Amino acid sequence: MANKQVEPSLFIIFGGTGDLSRRKLLPAIGRLAASLSLSDNLHVLGIARDTRQDDASFRDLAMESMIASGLRADEIAGFCNRRFHYQTIGNGAPSDYTQLRARLELLEQQHGLPANRTFYLAIPTASLGDTLSGLASAGMNQSSGWVRIVIEKPFGYDRASAGELVGLIRKYFAEDQVYRIDHYLGKETVQNLLVFRFGNPIFESLWNRDHIDSVQISVSEELGVGTRAGYYDKAGALRDMVQNHLTQLLTLLAMEVPPVIGADSVRYEKIKVLRSMAPILPGDVTFGQYSKGAIRGQPVPGYLEEIGVGASSTTETFAALKVEIMNWRWQGVPFYLRTGKRMPRQLTRIGVQFRNAPVCMFDVDGVCAVKPNTLLLTLQPDEGFSLHIGVKKPGSPSDVKQIPLSFKYRDIFDDIPEAYQTLVLDVLKGDQTLFVHSDEVLEAWNLYDPLLRWKYKVYPYAAGTRGPAEADRLAISEKELFENF
Amino acid sequence: MANKQVEPSLFIIFGGTGDLSRRKLLPAIGRLAASLSLSDNLHVLGIARDTRQDDASFRDLAMESMIASGLRADEIAGFCNRRFHYQTIGNGAPSDYTQLRARLELLEQQHGLPANRTFYLAIPTASLGDTLSGLASAGMNQSSGWVRIVIEKPFGYDRASAGELVGLIRKYFAEDQVYRIDHYLGKETVQNLLVFRFGNPIFESLWNRDHIDSVQISVSEELGVGTRAGYYDKAGALRDMVQNHLTQLLTLLAMEVPPVIGADSVRYEKIKVLRSMAPILPGDVTFGQYSKGAIRGQPVPGYLEEIGVGASSTTETFAALKVEIMNWRWQGVPFYLRTGKRMPRQLTRIGVQFRNAPVCMFDVDGVCAVKPNTLLLTLQPDEGFSLHIGVKKPGSPSDVKQIPLSFKYRDIFDDIPEAYQTLVLDVLKGDQTLFVHSDEVLEAWNLYDPLLRWKYKVYPYAAGTRGPAEADRLAISEKELFENF
Repeated sequence: MANKQVEPSLFIIFGGTGDLSRRKLLPAIGRLAASLSLSDNLHVLGIARDTRQDDASFRDLAMESMIASGLRADEIAGFCNRRFHYQTIGNGAPSDYTQLRARLELLEQQHGLPANRTFYLAIPTASLGDTLSGLASAGMNQSSGWVRIVIEKPFGYDRASAGELVGLIRKYFAEDQVYRIDHYLGKETVQNLLVFRFGNPIFESLWNRDHIDSVQISVSEELGVGTRAGYYDKAGALRDMVQNHLTQLLTLLAMEVPPVIGADSVRYEKIKVLRSMAPILPGDVTFGQYSKGAIRGQPVPGYLEEIGVGASSTTETFAALKVEIMNWRWQGVPFYLRTGKRMPRQLTRIGVQFRNAPVCMFDVDGVCAVKPNTLLLTLQPDEGFSLHIGVKKPGSPSDVKQIPLSFKYRDIFDDIPEAYQTLVLDVLKGDQTLFVHSDEVLEAWNLYDPLLRWKYKVYPYAAGTRGPAEADRLAISEKELFENF
Repeated sequence: MANKQVEPSLFIIFGGTGDLSRRKLLPAIGRLAASLSLSDNLHVLGIARDTRQDDASFRDLAMESMIASGLRADEIAGFCNRRFHYQTIGNGAPSDYTQLRARLELLEQQHGLPANRTFYLAIPTASLGDTLSGLASAGMNQSSGWVRIVIEKPFGYDRASAGELVGLIRKYFAEDQVYRIDHYLGKETVQNLLVFRFGNPIFESLWNRDHIDSVQISVSEELGVGTRAGYYDKAGALRDMVQNHLTQLLTLLAMEVPPVIGADSVRYEKIKVLRSMAPILPGDVTFGQYSKGAIRGQPVPGYLEEIGVGASSTTETFAALKVEIMNWRWQGVPFYLRTGKRMPRQLTRIGVQFRNAPVCMFDVDGVCAVKPNTLLLTLQPDEGFSLHIGVKKPGSPSDVKQIPLSFKYRDIFDDIPEAYQTLVLDVLKGDQTLFVHSDEVLEAWNLYDPLLRWKYKVYPYAAGTRGPAEADRLAISEKELFENF
């Protein structure tokens, strides 16, 4: 993996005063500045409609966001005061974009910057079209340096809308300018999947249908729909989690070895996985919706009682699917995708169950004592690995106990960067490896789009449980082992 | 592995009042009685030359040994008082054996026992011949029940003497009556090798020349020759450790999968390994002898200064060998055997180094960051496993740190039986799996006997160091990793 350099640039945030900017983006920039002395390279320009904001108020807002995320004022005050600027985009009229361009050029001139520009579009999908065409009309889709745009999910609502969105972006920007953020890809453990697979030959040797029985990717959320009902009730778990995050994990787990670790190579291998997916069958999907129940002993309402959810909503808050990859490496190995809200605990985990021994050589009173080996990769909350192996129970000649060989990231490493910090740095370096290619978006929609039109049953499950019993068949067979560690 | 039953029997200890009996054997019987209610099944008869001992004094001695090993008097007093007996063998005249036989029959009659008899020969090799022929002459090599004899090492001094000893035993006893103890085989971690290999298909899949680069078996002792110079100076490390313990570990590690875990199957596979060994070349052996130095900061004398060692002794206290198994599974994979006295620490460890990735996909400034995976199996002092895998260093896209996935037996299991406890129980059950077959003894000597006649150089090494530098080439290549964990 090439270690690209951070070049001097302007980082322009549309929606600069918005929620995402304050919660994630500004803190990420602050941490990068504190740890990497980005201040020599980077100026930040916040953009919003608000005409009353100015450089000073945006600097205050940036400082506030960074301090709220745990940074100390003295680490970032100088950086914010010298390098943060604000510009209104007004109502988005052509003149507003012309003024923006003038401001960019002025800043570049004042600070001796080349015309390297990142436009981070932290704005709703509905506003994307106007913003992209506004930028292009004012000639800001190109410059004498480089121009990159960063797009946040959702990448479409179905196959058709995703295709439109891809088309819209392509109209003004080339693929190598576009950075689609799926923040899951910025998590250390997700990136670590690449090292785990291609830096550990023993696992790569086992990583195929000859040795693997099944794979499970689970994203359990403890939270309910919260304040997002307006968005969520129209989306559901399939759009909100499966089509993007879980599918990204699936492709990283299943892809062939790329020739090098780089954006083109890695993303091409991920796309190949999606192109090899078998169509999903209705019998291999179970949807659920949480009813009232309890989380950690506290009663919580059902989905239909949540504020902003219609009383007859059939939106799924839980999805379990079996998918299959029809290629030489994976044919016949089920990949189980599971996600739900109001699960018993917050847990993102990948389970790889290896094939059991062909012959059982250890038993207790005729009952086989050997279980299949299992590898668990925990992405959150406590990042790490455990490999479950059988060891002899002391004192018994033939009883076997499954124990974990385990490792937790936090036991060894102090400073684990937050996903946005990693991804913003990659944008600044021009490394697209951890960003989603338009073909990935489209291929993923090709896979899931048919499901959006099914008349599916949505099974209720009590909040605080593991989802409807109907989904039990769509899980790794050694459930107990998988859940206990 | 069949769970055989313990049948009622007489356990007859020749050398019943000797050092081995008091330190190991009687405590092992005590622990078995305390944990398994053996008292209904077992009577113990101590045998020695001493004509002044009697049942009462032997019971006292047995109680004392057991209490010294950590048992509580109340756990074993009843057992010792009712089930322990003593008989002198005098000068070993035919009449002494006739009297012994009468005593056995009397005890069996008194206690309603079938004629199931174990003769545990805790006596010097020099006395074996007389004892075996004495037993046979008085007709005690057979009975209406079963007769088993237990033999302690050494199993010969070279190929010729081992052949004589095997011939002597065969004259009176069938192979299935003979239990040769190598106490290493009774250690939980050694037994666990069988479960590790055949109860964990992922490792068995990797267990061959396609995936393994090299294997190292190391037995490091902190102690010097101590009070054993009389024996040791004539033996040396090759006879004392390599020919038996290390070679036993080698065969368990390298053997093919047996059809079942049972004495015949397992021992046949071990014998096959020995029959596939390539002859050892002089260039693949380094011997050493410790000179004065320091252990944990305390000065200790050199081997030649030890009491009972001749001033010009060339006995090796350290041996490092490379051996090779010429079969389909292992050809080309070096097995390094290493053992020494006065090493920096007490450590018995097996290291399996897997082949490195064929292509290095992660580097830091052009230097490959990927190391081969390594599996370490620690037998003592802290039994357990660690599998060393590469993980991404947080914050760096391409730096890899090798970390251990680890497990320690004592973290999970409370009560780990001592080797003699396991082996005595196996004798009582009639399970020969963990005992050494005569063909194993002879084949091992076939391998090492030529070395006994070489004019080898013995390199000095300071006590408290890792042996002579000349042996460095005969070790796994990732030495640092191997030693650090």
